[in-house]
Amino acid sequence: MTKTASTVRTLSWEDEALVLIDQRKLPHQLEYVRCDCLDDVIVAIQTMVIRGAPAIGIAAAYGVVLAARAAHKDHGDAWAKAIEIDCQRLRAARPTAVNLAWAVDAMRKKVPPTERNPVPVLLAYARLLEQQDVVANKAIGDFGALHVSSGSRVITHCNAGALATAGYGTALGVIRSASAENKLERVFATETRPWLQGARLTAWELQQDGIPVTLIADSAAAHLMRTGEIAWVITGADRVAANGDVANKIGTYSLAVCAKAHGVRFMVAAPLSTIDRKTADGDAIPIECRAGAELLGNVAPVGAAAYNPVFDVTPAEFVDVLVTERGAIAKPNALSIRQLFEA
Amino acid sequence: MTKTASTVRTLSWEDEALVLIDQRKLPHQLEYVRCDCLDDVIVAIQTMVIRGAPAIGIAAAYGVVLAARAAHKDHGDAWAKAIEIDCQRLRAARPTAVNLAWAVDAMRKKVPPTERNPVPVLLAYARLLEQQDVVANKAIGDFGALHVSSGSRVITHCNAGALATAGYGTALGVIRSASAENKLERVFATETRPWLQGARLTAWELQQDGIPVTLIADSAAAHLMRTGEIAWVITGADRVAANGDVANKIGTYSLAVCAKAHGVRFMVAAPLSTIDRKTADGDAIPIECRAGAELLGNVAPVGAAAYNPVFDVTPAEFVDVLVTERGAIAKPNALSIRQLFEA
Repeated sequence: MTKTASTVRTLSWEDEALVLIDQRKLPHQLEYVRCDCLDDVIVAIQTMVIRGAPAIGIAAAYGVVLAARAAHKDHGDAWAKAIEIDCQRLRAARPTAVNLAWAVDAMRKKVPPTERNPVPVLLAYARLLEQQDVVANKAIGDFGALHVSSGSRVITHCNAGALATAGYGTALGVIRSASAENKLERVFATETRPWLQGARLTAWELQQDGIPVTLIADSAAAHLMRTGEIAWVITGADRVAANGDVANKIGTYSLAVCAKAHGVRFMVAAPLSTIDRKTADGDAIPIECRAGAELLGNVAPVGAAAYNPVFDVTPAEFVDVLVTERGAIAKPNALSIRQLFEA
Repeated sequence: MTKTASTVRTLSWEDEALVLIDQRKLPHQLEYVRCDCLDDVIVAIQTMVIRGAPAIGIAAAYGVVLAARAAHKDHGDAWAKAIEIDCQRLRAARPTAVNLAWAVDAMRKKVPPTERNPVPVLLAYARLLEQQDVVANKAIGDFGALHVSSGSRVITHCNAGALATAGYGTALGVIRSASAENKLERVFATETRPWLQGARLTAWELQQDGIPVTLIADSAAAHLMRTGEIAWVITGADRVAANGDVANKIGTYSLAVCAKAHGVRFMVAAPLSTIDRKTADGDAIPIECRAGAELLGNVAPVGAAAYNPVFDVTPAEFVDVLVTERGAIAKPNALSIRQLFEA
C-alpha cells in the first residue's frame, strides 16, 4: 500500500499489524511494509526497512506484541515461555543500537507470566513507548536548541530524524527546534556512506520542513570546518555507554576529532533509552560490521575486499554536550550520567 | 578501440594522436579515448577521462603538440601566435592541479616562436616529460619506502597511482616500492567520494599488482586509526604551495587531522612539477568545486542543494614527510622546499 506524504509516519500500528515506511525506497518512493508477525519485524530491522536506534526500539516493542499474540494463540496460558526464544532472536537482530534490547526487556517486564492474555497490556505499553519517544524527542529538541546561537551553521551526520524515531527526531529534533526559533542559517548534511542516509533521508526530511539543507561528501566536513564557520556538529547515538562514550554511525568519530581540532562544538542528542548503564565504556559496545557489498556496490572490481564497520565509538571527551529529554549535560562522564538518571 | 589489460598505459602517443584510458569506465571496462586535436584533450581533462595531477600534466603536454600541429598547418610560421589562446584554454581546463599549467608553460618555453615547424621539438619534449614522470615516480617510490617499516598497515586516499601519472604512481609508487620490499601488511584504500577513485581505480591497480588492499568508507578512516594500528596515511598531491601546504583530493585534510590526533604519520608523495613555488600558501590555491550532481547522483531528493569541493588544503604542519624525486623532507616548510629545488 502507498500513502501520500502528508500522512508520513515512520511506524504505526494499524489493523492489528505494524506498518513501517520502507526507508530503502526513500526519497523517490514512499512505500510501506506491513509486519504481521515477529519474523516480519526481525527481517525489517535486519534489512533496514527501518533503522535509527529509537525507531528500531519502538518497532521491536510492537514485535513483542506480535510474538505474544502468536504465542497466546498457539500456547494459551503458556505464552510467556513460548516467546522467550522469540525475544532473544528479536534482541539479536542488530547488535549496536541498545534501544532494541531496551525495548524488548521493558516489554517483557511489563506483563507477568501469569497474565492469561498478555496482548492488551503489551499493545497498550508499546503505544505508550511510541508516544513517549515523540515527547522525549521534542524535549531533546528544545533543550538542545538552547545551546545553538542565532545565525548558526551546523553539520549533521546520518539521519537522526523523524525517520529514525517515532517522530520529530533527536539530532534533527534539535535542528527542528533551533530552526523554529530562527537560529539556523544552514544545515549541512553529510551524505553518509555507505547507506547514504544523509542524502536519502535527512535531505528529504529537512526539505519537507523547509529547513535549508546542503549535502556534502562525508570527507568534506573537515574542509568545511576549516573554511565555513561551522558552530556545531549535531548527531544522534545508537548507544551511549555509562561513561559517556558514544556509539553512532560510522564517521561520527571522524567528525568529532575534526570538530575538536577546529573549535567546532559537538552535540549528541539521544533519549535516555539510548544510554546503556550496563555498558561501562565504548570498548564494550559491539560494533556491527555489515557486508562489504554495501560499500562496493557494483563499482569496485570483482574480488575486492572491504571492511565495513557501520558504527564507531566517540570517546566522551569529544562530546561537548549530551542532550536528553531530562536536559543537557556538558562534557558527560559516569557521574553526570548517573545523576541524570537519578534526577 | 579496446585493448587487453596487459598493455595498460594511462596515456600514450600513438598514430599521431594522444590515446588515453577512459578512467570513467574502469574497473569494469578498459576502453581508450583517442584525442586528435586540442579540444579533445581539453574535454578529456574536464570530463575526467583522465585525472590525477601528473597525468593531466603529461596529457596537456601532448595537447600542446596537437595545438601546434593544427596552428602550423593553418598558419605556417605564425603558429606561435595562433596557439596562444589555445594554451590559455588548456591551462584553464581544471584549476587546482598545478601540473597542468606547469606542463603547458614548459612546452611553450621549449621552442622559440621563430622555429618554422615546432611539432618535432614539442613532440620530442612531451615524450621526454612522460618518461621523466615515470622515472620521478620510481624515485619517489623508493625514497618514500625508506620511511615505511616492515609489517606496516597504511591508508591511501583517492588514486595517486599509475593511472594518475605517466606510470608507477606517487602515493601508490611508495606503496609499490614498499610492497616490493615486503614491508606492507595491508593497504586500506578509501573509496573516495564522490567519484570513487579509490573503489574504482586504486583497488583495481593494486589488485593487478597483487598488493593486498581493503576498501573502506572515507568516514571509517578515523575509526580504523583508533583501532587498527595504522602506521601511515600516504597520499599524492594536486599542488604543493611554496610553504608546503598541500592541495589534494577532498578528504585528504580530514585524514591529516585524524592522523595527527592518533599519532599516525602522514606522507605526501609528489614530483617537483606539483610544487608551485609561485603560490605562497594553501589559501592562494584555487579549489575546484564541481557540479552537485556528482554528489547527488540519482539518490538525493529532487531539488536538494549540494556543496561539492573536490579538493581541500592540508596545512604543511600536518605533513610529516614530503617525498619528491629529489628525496624526502620532513615537516616541509618554505626554506626546506626552496633548498629542494636548489639541491
